[in-house]
Amino acid sequence: MTVVYNLDQIKSAIDFESLIASQEAGFVAYSEGRVDVPPVGYLGFPEVRGDCHIKYGRILGSDYFVIKVATGFYDNPSLSLSVGSGLMLVFSQRNGRLEGVLLDEGFLTDMRTAVAGAIAAKYLAPKQVQRIGIVGTGVQARMQLDMLKQETDCREAVVWGRDRAKATEYAEEMSAKGFSVEAVDGIRNLAATCNLIVTTTPSREPLLLASDIRPGTHITAVGADAEGKQELDPDIFAKADIVAADSRSQCIDHGDISHGVRSEVIDPTTLIELGELIKNRNLGRTSGNQITVADLTGVAVQDIQIATMVFENLQFKHAKG
Amino acid sequence: MTVVYNLDQIKSAIDFESLIASQEAGFVAYSEGRVDVPPVGYLGFPEVRGDCHIKYGRILGSDYFVIKVATGFYDNPSLSLSVGSGLMLVFSQRNGRLEGVLLDEGFLTDMRTAVAGAIAAKYLAPKQVQRIGIVGTGVQARMQLDMLKQETDCREAVVWGRDRAKATEYAEEMSAKGFSVEAVDGIRNLAATCNLIVTTTPSREPLLLASDIRPGTHITAVGADAEGKQELDPDIFAKADIVAADSRSQCIDHGDISHGVRSEVIDPTTLIELGELIKNRNLGRTSGNQITVADLTGVAVQDIQIATMVFENLQFKHAKG
Repeated sequence: MTVVYNLDQIKSAIDFESLIASQEAGFVAYSEGRVDVPPVGYLGFPEVRGDCHIKYGRILGSDYFVIKVATGFYDNPSLSLSVGSGLMLVFSQRNGRLEGVLLDEGFLTDMRTAVAGAIAAKYLAPKQVQRIGIVGTGVQARMQLDMLKQETDCREAVVWGRDRAKATEYAEEMSAKGFSVEAVDGIRNLAATCNLIVTTTPSREPLLLASDIRPGTHITAVGADAEGKQELDPDIFAKADIVAADSRSQCIDHGDISHGVRSEVIDPTTLIELGELIKNRNLGRTSGNQITVADLTGVAVQDIQIATMVFENLQFKHAKG
Repeated sequence: MTVVYNLDQIKSAIDFESLIASQEAGFVAYSEGRVDVPPVGYLGFPEVRGDCHIKYGRILGSDYFVIKVATGFYDNPSLSLSVGSGLMLVFSQRNGRLEGVLLDEGFLTDMRTAVAGAIAAKYLAPKQVQRIGIVGTGVQARMQLDMLKQETDCREAVVWGRDRAKATEYAEEMSAKGFSVEAVDGIRNLAATCNLIVTTTPSREPLLLASDIRPGTHITAVGADAEGKQELDPDIFAKADIVAADSRSQCIDHGDISHGVRSEVIDPTTLIELGELIKNRNLGRTSGNQITVADLTGVAVQDIQIATMVFENLQFKHAKG
């Protein structure tokens, strides 16, 4: 029997501990080569600036495989609709039966992306986070900061956005969630006081400059998930002691890291993967002065793991009545 | 709002006239190049002889796009489960919203495959069908014969299967559906009295021989949907006056036609597509003595059209209350 769950049910099934444990296990499986993730399926709708991506795969030997469909229709706001939508499908690896339909409307993708930021901070952020700097004012800007509550006690944040009004709105909204947030003009002013920075924009040119980065800073770059996107000055990689990638091959292909590789400031053999870092914490930050960078492009194993975790939690609730 | 429909609701939403009209329109759109159908996604489960195919695409400028997931797990019968399963997803081409989830468990794929057989018969079968010959005893053997009711008055049928007991069971079952069905030993005996033959097996070697085919016979070959499969003696193509393909490129790649092309009994430039035949009936049978063949490998536009039709019918019912 296929069970269909809606967004409210899905939200009720997330607890942070299972989430981080399952996501970490997923990154480890990915780095150990224990996943089968075929190429992403794509359908384009140029006439309405829309696209549809189908990401799917499995961790070998686990119970379920997952297919995720994500759409992005960039003219939707003019129709009073959000840009993104989608769902996740959970199938049995034993008999191919469709077990669960998660009508998450893109929420689980946002959530797994935000958790990856928290995981990067867990292994790479300095022990004493002075202030958290958020570049961008969208959904990920909100979720990344919110999720960092789980990995640091710091509640001081600074936000920068191209649109000052949106940054102010962001500051007000996140202040209500327990942070003290200041909106600043100029990313330089953000980098000057923050030693944990998360960039969350769809920028196509460097926003954060190497000259602005202080020793001891960790940067998580979330925005560059496709060719042509870029948030970091490639010279940041030259200054960095540790550069981590969610997927080495993918970050070299189209992450912020790709720009560093192309300008030859990154030696690809020095890159470490998040899954390697999780397995061996010694690969992470070892001193308060190091500069570290995590480049997150998004991998299907994150979808596989969050869908499986949510589905299993919902089944368990269901069984308990 | 996403609406989820189960198998019973889906079955209730099919009427033959809309079905054949929408399938014909789909084949025409395909042959006119008005579709965008990316390569099929694939995930394999060799440890349990399973596979998963993701077929998707759109007719340019229509209201919806469709993603179909179909699984086949060939050890399932030992778990008392059917081999195939799956679902279809209907999305808006305008805003990317998931409009409908059709939990059809593979039924719509069987149905669109059977309708394609009826369409092939509509344009290629002789006016006077003496007897219908069915090769194979599975789901398609049943659905193809049942669907032919819509295109011919003939109710006399002959069935051949490797397993005589299954052929007898088939004959009993289809007799209850208004046919007079005889199970025969040897396909030669079937070809000797039938001038409309449908082959529906997963055979990997020729079953139907050229020497057994009489003038005036139409053959629809449904089984060869992947490399290595074959139901027809390639010399049948040498005898044939008209050879039609659902998809020229696909049939040349892996349909029964591929064996004819490889043995050089088919000149690929003489092939016609079902969509061309539907647009221009003159390309079809013009005399009672012609031998005609339709090779059906299955194209995503069939899935797109059946899912859209069912979804629209269900929405309409819904709206009426």
